[in-house]
Amino acid sequence: MNFNVDERLLHGGDYNPDQWLDYPAVIEKDFALMKKAQINTLTLGVFAWSALEPEEGHFDFGWLDDIFDRVNQMGGNVILATPSGARPQWLSEKYPEVNRVDERLQRHTHGFRHDHCFSSPVYQEKVRIINTKLAERYGNNPALAMWHVSNEYSGTCFCDLCQANWQQWLQSKYHTLKALNDAWLMSFWGGTYTDWAQIKVPSELGSRKVHGMALDWHRFNTAMTIDFFDAEVKPLRAANPAIPVTTNFMAEGPNGDFIPLQGIDYGAFAKHVDVVSWDSYPQWNNNFEPLAETAMKTAFVHDTFYGLKNQPFLVMESAPSRVNTAVAKLKRPGVHALASFQQLAHGSEGSLYFQIHASRANSEKFHGGVIGHDGTGDTRVFKEVAAYGERLTQLKGLRRTTRKPYVAILFDWDVLWAQKREAAFGRDRKRYFQTLEDHYNFFWQHDIPVAVQPVDHDFSQYDLVIAPMLYLMRPELMARLQAYVKQGGTLVSSYFTGIVDEHDSVYLGGWPQSLQETFGVALGEFDSVYPGEHNRVSFAGQTFETHDYNQLITAKAAQVLGQYENDFYAGTAAVTQNDYGTGHAYYIGPRTGRDLLNKLYDGLPVVQALTSEQLAAPNAAVSIQTRQGEAGTFVFIMNFSEQAQTVTLKQALVDAETGAALSGTLALNPYQVVVAKEG
Amino acid sequence: MNFNVDERLLHGGDYNPDQWLDYPAVIEKDFALMKKAQINTLTLGVFAWSALEPEEGHFDFGWLDDIFDRVNQMGGNVILATPSGARPQWLSEKYPEVNRVDERLQRHTHGFRHDHCFSSPVYQEKVRIINTKLAERYGNNPALAMWHVSNEYSGTCFCDLCQANWQQWLQSKYHTLKALNDAWLMSFWGGTYTDWAQIKVPSELGSRKVHGMALDWHRFNTAMTIDFFDAEVKPLRAANPAIPVTTNFMAEGPNGDFIPLQGIDYGAFAKHVDVVSWDSYPQWNNNFEPLAETAMKTAFVHDTFYGLKNQPFLVMESAPSRVNTAVAKLKRPGVHALASFQQLAHGSEGSLYFQIHASRANSEKFHGGVIGHDGTGDTRVFKEVAAYGERLTQLKGLRRTTRKPYVAILFDWDVLWAQKREAAFGRDRKRYFQTLEDHYNFFWQHDIPVAVQPVDHDFSQYDLVIAPMLYLMRPELMARLQAYVKQGGTLVSSYFTGIVDEHDSVYLGGWPQSLQETFGVALGEFDSVYPGEHNRVSFAGQTFETHDYNQLITAKAAQVLGQYENDFYAGTAAVTQNDYGTGHAYYIGPRTGRDLLNKLYDGLPVVQALTSEQLAAPNAAVSIQTRQGEAGTFVFIMNFSEQAQTVTLKQALVDAETGAALSGTLALNPYQVVVAKEG
Amino acid sequence: MNFNVDERLLHGGDYNPDQWLDYPAVIEKDFALMKKAQINTLTLGVFAWSALEPEEGHFDFGWLDDIFDRVNQMGGNVILATPSGARPQWLSEKYPEVNRVDERLQRHTHGFRHDHCFSSPVYQEKVRIINTKLAERYGNNPALAMWHVSNEYSGTCFCDLCQANWQQWLQSKYHTLKALNDAWLMSFWGGTYTDWAQIKVPSELGSRKVHGMALDWHRFNTAMTIDFFDAEVKPLRAANPAIPVTTNFMAEGPNGDFIPLQGIDYGAFAKHVDVVSWDSYPQWNNNFEPLAETAMKTAFVHDTFYGLKNQPFLVMESAPSRVNTAVAKLKRPGVHALASFQQLAHGSEGSLYFQIHASRANSEKFHGGVIGHDGTGDTRVFKEVAAYGERLTQLKGLRRTTRKPYVAILFDWDVLWAQKREAAFGRDRKRYFQTLEDHYNFFWQHDIPVAVQPVDHDFSQYDLVIAPMLYLMRPELMARLQAYVKQGGTLVSSYFTGIVDEHDSVYLGGWPQSLQETFGVALGEFDSVYPGEHNRVSFAGQTFETHDYNQLITAKAAQVLGQYENDFYAGTAAVTQNDYGTGHAYYIGPRTGRDLLNKLYDGLPVVQALTSEQLAAPNAAVSIQTRQGEAGTFVFIMNFSEQAQTVTLKQALVDAETGAALSGTLALNPYQVVVAKEG
Repeated sequence: MNFNVDERLLHGGDYNPDQWLDYPAVIEKDFALMKKAQINTLTLGVFAWSALEPEEGHFDFGWLDDIFDRVNQMGGNVILATPSGARPQWLSEKYPEVNRVDERLQRHTHGFRHDHCFSSPVYQEKVRIINTKLAERYGNNPALAMWHVSNEYSGTCFCDLCQANWQQWLQSKYHTLKALNDAWLMSFWGGTYTDWAQIKVPSELGSRKVHGMALDWHRFNTAMTIDFFDAEVKPLRAANPAIPVTTNFMAEGPNGDFIPLQGIDYGAFAKHVDVVSWDSYPQWNNNFEPLAETAMKTAFVHDTFYGLKNQPFLVMESAPSRVNTAVAKLKRPGVHALASFQQLAHGSEGSLYFQIHASRANSEKFHGGVIGHDGTGDTRVFKEVAAYGERLTQLKGLRRTTRKPYVAILFDWDVLWAQKREAAFGRDRKRYFQTLEDHYNFFWQHDIPVAVQPVDHDFSQYDLVIAPMLYLMRPELMARLQAYVKQGGTLVSSYFTGIVDEHDSVYLGGWPQSLQETFGVALGEFDSVYPGEHNRVSFAGQTFETHDYNQLITAKAAQVLGQYENDFYAGTAAVTQNDYGTGHAYYIGPRTGRDLLNKLYDGLPVVQALTSEQLAAPNAAVSIQTRQGEAGTFVFIMNFSEQAQTVTLKQALVDAETGAALSGTLALNPYQVVVAKEG
Repeated sequence: MNFNVDERLLHGGDYNPDQWLDYPAVIEKDFALMKKAQINTLTLGVFAWSALEPEEGHFDFGWLDDIFDRVNQMGGNVILATPSGARPQWLSEKYPEVNRVDERLQRHTHGFRHDHCFSSPVYQEKVRIINTKLAERYGNNPALAMWHVSNEYSGTCFCDLCQANWQQWLQSKYHTLKALNDAWLMSFWGGTYTDWAQIKVPSELGSRKVHGMALDWHRFNTAMTIDFFDAEVKPLRAANPAIPVTTNFMAEGPNGDFIPLQGIDYGAFAKHVDVVSWDSYPQWNNNFEPLAETAMKTAFVHDTFYGLKNQPFLVMESAPSRVNTAVAKLKRPGVHALASFQQLAHGSEGSLYFQIHASRANSEKFHGGVIGHDGTGDTRVFKEVAAYGERLTQLKGLRRTTRKPYVAILFDWDVLWAQKREAAFGRDRKRYFQTLEDHYNFFWQHDIPVAVQPVDHDFSQYDLVIAPMLYLMRPELMARLQAYVKQGGTLVSSYFTGIVDEHDSVYLGGWPQSLQETFGVALGEFDSVYPGEHNRVSFAGQTFETHDYNQLITAKAAQVLGQYENDFYAGTAAVTQNDYGTGHAYYIGPRTGRDLLNKLYDGLPVVQALTSEQLAAPNAAVSIQTRQGEAGTFVFIMNFSEQAQTVTLKQALVDAETGAALSGTLALNPYQVVVAKEG
Repeated sequence: MNFNVDERLLHGGDYNPDQWLDYPAVIEKDFALMKKAQINTLTLGVFAWSALEPEEGHFDFGWLDDIFDRVNQMGGNVILATPSGARPQWLSEKYPEVNRVDERLQRHTHGFRHDHCFSSPVYQEKVRIINTKLAERYGNNPALAMWHVSNEYSGTCFCDLCQANWQQWLQSKYHTLKALNDAWLMSFWGGTYTDWAQIKVPSELGSRKVHGMALDWHRFNTAMTIDFFDAEVKPLRAANPAIPVTTNFMAEGPNGDFIPLQGIDYGAFAKHVDVVSWDSYPQWNNNFEPLAETAMKTAFVHDTFYGLKNQPFLVMESAPSRVNTAVAKLKRPGVHALASFQQLAHGSEGSLYFQIHASRANSEKFHGGVIGHDGTGDTRVFKEVAAYGERLTQLKGLRRTTRKPYVAILFDWDVLWAQKREAAFGRDRKRYFQTLEDHYNFFWQHDIPVAVQPVDHDFSQYDLVIAPMLYLMRPELMARLQAYVKQGGTLVSSYFTGIVDEHDSVYLGGWPQSLQETFGVALGEFDSVYPGEHNRVSFAGQTFETHDYNQLITAKAAQVLGQYENDFYAGTAAVTQNDYGTGHAYYIGPRTGRDLLNKLYDGLPVVQALTSEQLAAPNAAVSIQTRQGEAGTFVFIMNFSEQAQTVTLKQALVDAETGAALSGTLALNPYQVVVAKEG
């Protein structure tokens, strides 16, 4: 089996038989229940190193062979993990260098998963050995569908080995100390380096205020992580180059947010994996927002991960119900299928769970499993999973279908990092990804598909490019945006765009010329106001409140669409439109609510054209997403609300599961999903 | 003298002449004032090591001899402390191993009391020497009433010596690594140990997420503390086995709480002391709750400490007025006697203060003393203490009388620790001890005495056993509870009961069979909701709001008393009653306010029987507590309010102080206490 | 040139050509723009060590020579910094001892300015060498106006060298361990020292609870800082004793406060500088208070720094608009001149900025410069600076004029430190400096100049002395206050006065006798209440609310002006007046709002006399301040509001800039400043 050749949607997830080796009856029953739940895919071995190599150089694959046999018997897939996410105790004990050194330069003892030093030669070698063993033993096993390399790569180490790598990486990048001193403006506060060895890791005992260094440290850690990943992959490819490799990316959501992980540049990382996969844990059924808002945020992350390679991805982990968090609320009946179908709707090739059988103890014991602590198929959760599995079997032809968006939202981890290091204007108020979400929201609500795109992607084919808050911009990107507009594209941008170069150094001499030409404006002062302070903007006959930031604008070639109403810059431009070449460039000076963005997008000709192609009149609680391929166009109609909803179809569809014809007004029960196909 | 033979109620407290050795006139005057205040007991030597052994091996007992002489002259008691709570500077300096290593594995310098390593052989030996010296010199002094071993034992050390003890303790407990790996489920995240030496202390640089380890670490620290205590006691007992030993336990109260110290299992520790004593610092006259609520919380702690040995205890420290905290508000006139009589009412053998003469400097200088910085007897505080001392002399025969409760509330530090380590369901929302308080509250308000009991106590003699949130339960306890009900007992329990075994490992296969039989229910899903979210329960003709937790229940043999009103489990059981054997078992699914608990208890037949035995009709602001013994039954009638109150007596009483007859309506001034005896 | 002989008001600020050495055109243009902005003073070399000594012992002064030449050509002043505020990387690398050890006893790597050990002999020697080089090269340069020694001295180090200095410093102070043990009451918690080597630095791993030690640690750090400063100055004076030396002091303002830096005793430090200078960054145009409140707070700090030497000072840094903080809001048009004139009004000899040209990168790149990132003179900020510079040239004769206050407010860093270490009564509620501000506010609002004075200054010449919350008092100060009142002075004090001696040890035997005589009262209990709790005081026919603290008072010789209304001390004295000798002493028992203070001051005969001398009827939004000298009396009339205001002049004035006559009603535009002279 192989992910690329299997035609089935993947259903299943992490299974950890190494936790149940003394309970053979449990394993036996688990497989019976998996069958009942239409589970066809098992992610194995994620934290199994200590089970596979209980002593240094002594390996035990017997138990894993057995599970492989069982999977083969059931005709299933294995996604096999390399076990580097959690090293064995003997490794930490014998080779302390494998343990990370923390931000206060103290060496950790073994204690936690994901706490190994990427620079350690010993660790690299031990990982190479176990990966080679796994590759040789299972690389050609018929059940093997994909490699799951390590687990949720993240974090940093501040040890001397990493410091040496850091200095080496900087030397490769800058070649001369003068170049580095200049890029980071080390003459500020008199910190000019005169020897590469002086450049310490930015620990809590050292320097964390040099912006250029902080930015490079993020890049260095991304590079270190990718290097480690590449090294892990080498023996896997050697054994069988046909098996695709992935690693599970993450999203994070403190305080009700839900955005891609901020610590690693997944745009760069995605170039090294065959398939993007990620672990999706939204806070469904929370009490701080409507379900549709949670759905929109989740859709944004799905589209971000789809956009990394512009190809279908895989939800590697999700929770059948309860997540091991401070609240751990149950998903309401029906939400499981709703959330899972949404994964497919945005391009996932299946729905995988963490985990198939809940652990009986230790730190995630209350994270829900398909099979709970009772060990039966009698629970509501199991039954909902099984029902969803059954429905999946009806969606033949969905695999490998793709999305066709005409709108792109550009984003960049460099921008995120540069903005977050900057103390002025409120470190915590920058909210870059969340601002992208505010723009995305309009399109999600109108069922217009969006391509969330790293800035280095070619965006020339899109009808509309949205690029707000691109604080850090390279001249090359400015040139591409200028050419895009000149050649007829529509571009929307905002305050905090084009301020600094790739070293987080402010462009001198005013806003870069190419941006001035593209947008037809010059920038004036930037007014950053206190929380609770507001200006107002008159725009399109209405008044909108601003907060946090008011960029003052001098319109040159551009026409003024909106003006500030208050303060000493009352009457000056706040929103502008520049007709440039055959295209249009819009600039938004202040931070506003979604209301102004909605109004702006609603009025864009390019958006009106897209709206006319919608399959149904928008309903804010119902999301419609499509995937297209050889087998036709699949239409997912999802009711993200606790109320019954109706959708008025503009064209006739067919229910993909039942074959029933659908037209006119489609009634949806609370949480209901209809998967249709174009007629 | 000896605590066991003295017939007087103890009155006095910590006296620190070692702070006044250069002020002989102060000491002279202090003794005169003590006499005036009817002080008969001095706790000496609590932090006197550096005064007793100013240089290693050179001892100076002269000043202490002098104080002993003075106490003997006044016919008083000495409670003599061993000085291990604060080591001398020379000891820390010469033997750094005696200083603790903290959670970041850094060795402390001398700096703070209670900061010594329990594992240090040097420290153990130095303590043995000084304790032996004290025991030999004062063990048979006629004034010696009790040993006060060390002071407020607490805290942990993470040094290599402690780590070796930890590994040794684990080896003694589990015998094999396989047993330990299994108990902690170390295969989760691949952390299986292959050598005992791999098991590090759970420092911040290591592992803090393994639930079983975290639980054992608490147990280990309790065991270490007790071992140290036992070693301290040995030379004391050798010198004079007749003198009882105690150590002062604590309560803690961040954020308005007031509960027993969470760090040490006092249930286990109490088995090693002759007399339980504790330091009581409630926040009297605060602004966040009525005085009666403060009184109820304090009563709960008193009853917890009484229950540890089911015998009278001793309040070792309390504040005559101001406590050295962030607010340090004065106790209002009359509150001192009120709070002190409450100590007696719940079983204390006297009232002791920290301290008799306020320190003139250093970190507790504004903690109030009986004698303040003015050094006189002219203050309101001194006068109130003296008046209380005078009243104490009237209560002849109170010593050694006991309490006779018919209701038991079970509790367990293991449960507290296991729940607090668990991230899911909200670490800070568990509030185990506070939930017990919610149950306790009903009985306190109705003047029904309660025995707060560790789970390993025999509870078969009680009419009613209350055991909510017993998250961690051993099968043996389940069996005892089952037998208790079967044989006619009434049992009340709730959500979060019987979930994990002694290793914090979830019981597999559903809720344990014996609990299902006892309560006649099976448990369904557990819904943990967001703060601010509520379900409602209809019960006994009323509706009650739930919060935090809603345990879904399937009634089997049980009858349903209350049902959820909302959400997808509307109409299912929320409160049940199972008539089992000749007894009754009640199960409460959701967390509710005290309103539902009050309603439930109010309707229990067993409670109604107890209510009929009350001495007076309940008044929520007035607490009535009794102690019984050879000298008869003492009845404490305490007005915990700023208003005058009346109490309607159901039987005639006699004022224990004045001999006046009391019957019918008894009028109480604000804060007034009447101590009566049954006629 | 020299600060003492230049007649011009200083205008300019930090200029960092070492950041622009590769941009000669920028430097060229900067000087042209400076001329345009009437800039006459450049602060050079603040962080230039690495540019001046790029390798150990190899110096490069060429670039600085060039800048000096340019300044000489423009007839300007240089304020030349010694560069010790930020050491070169090679120094940190080669001599790790120069890097500080932090509160957790960990050695820092190079990472931050102001992070060097004051005790390091290597650092001292390296600073001596570079300072000597600078002094020899530029000490007699005609442009040199002043030395700017280091930068914003602050912070502490916990290394072994500092620990040895600490022990030495203590030994010099106390001579015997007995004296030290007694002063700190080390017998409390048994910590008596028996060897000087036992006295560790109060790190987080050691002792932070000994009040006397904590207080001495603050003093020691002030002494260390001054010693370091004195050593820095030595080579400067040697080269040219005529050039005055200063170092830039600071204010701080977390949470909306704006008060002098709390970490260093500037009262002691000021004795070592020739001119006091400071860096002034108020939060102008914030959203949490009226502009007049911000102005009052800033005025208080100005007056504090003026008062240190009772002579004109210099604002060394201020922001032309945006400050590099979390909000970084723009100053509104006109506020720049308003804030800058206020500096002059309170005694500054000019207005200097940080910085003249904004840095293009690194951690303060968004702190506004006179010249922004655009590099032009076209911005609003530049134009406002230039316009202000132009106005400065009109104010001939203002230099060296002085202030003539008749009211003194006493303050003491010892008091601040002692109160802040004290846990009881709420560490964060003490708000000592802010309480002084509450008293100061009355006089600011009434345009009555105030001398804010360290307690060791002679205050006998003032008509009114305000000395609230003088918690720590030496007997000598009590005697001076007593003599002051006896001889006819008016004194106001409050709760928290005269409680502890210089070692933070409580005065025994009641409130000190001399205070009792001066105020004619004895003190009773001190009631510290919960936030949100209030008593009320009836005073002068009104009722005022109290909070935090209620000191109970027994009036002896004093008459009672105000009484508590509630609680058990209702009816007792709250505010008293003692007519003693020929003077009057007022004591305020509770903490109240400004309302009671205003009422009290409004009624004082001495205040009424001062009010009659006002130049104009007070307007709460308009501040009037005067400076007097040979050239006459300058009157600054400043409208600190967004509204037009009028002021009714009691005497005729002349506009100092235009020569126009001013009398009767003077109309002021929003933010307008009129500088007048007496006719």
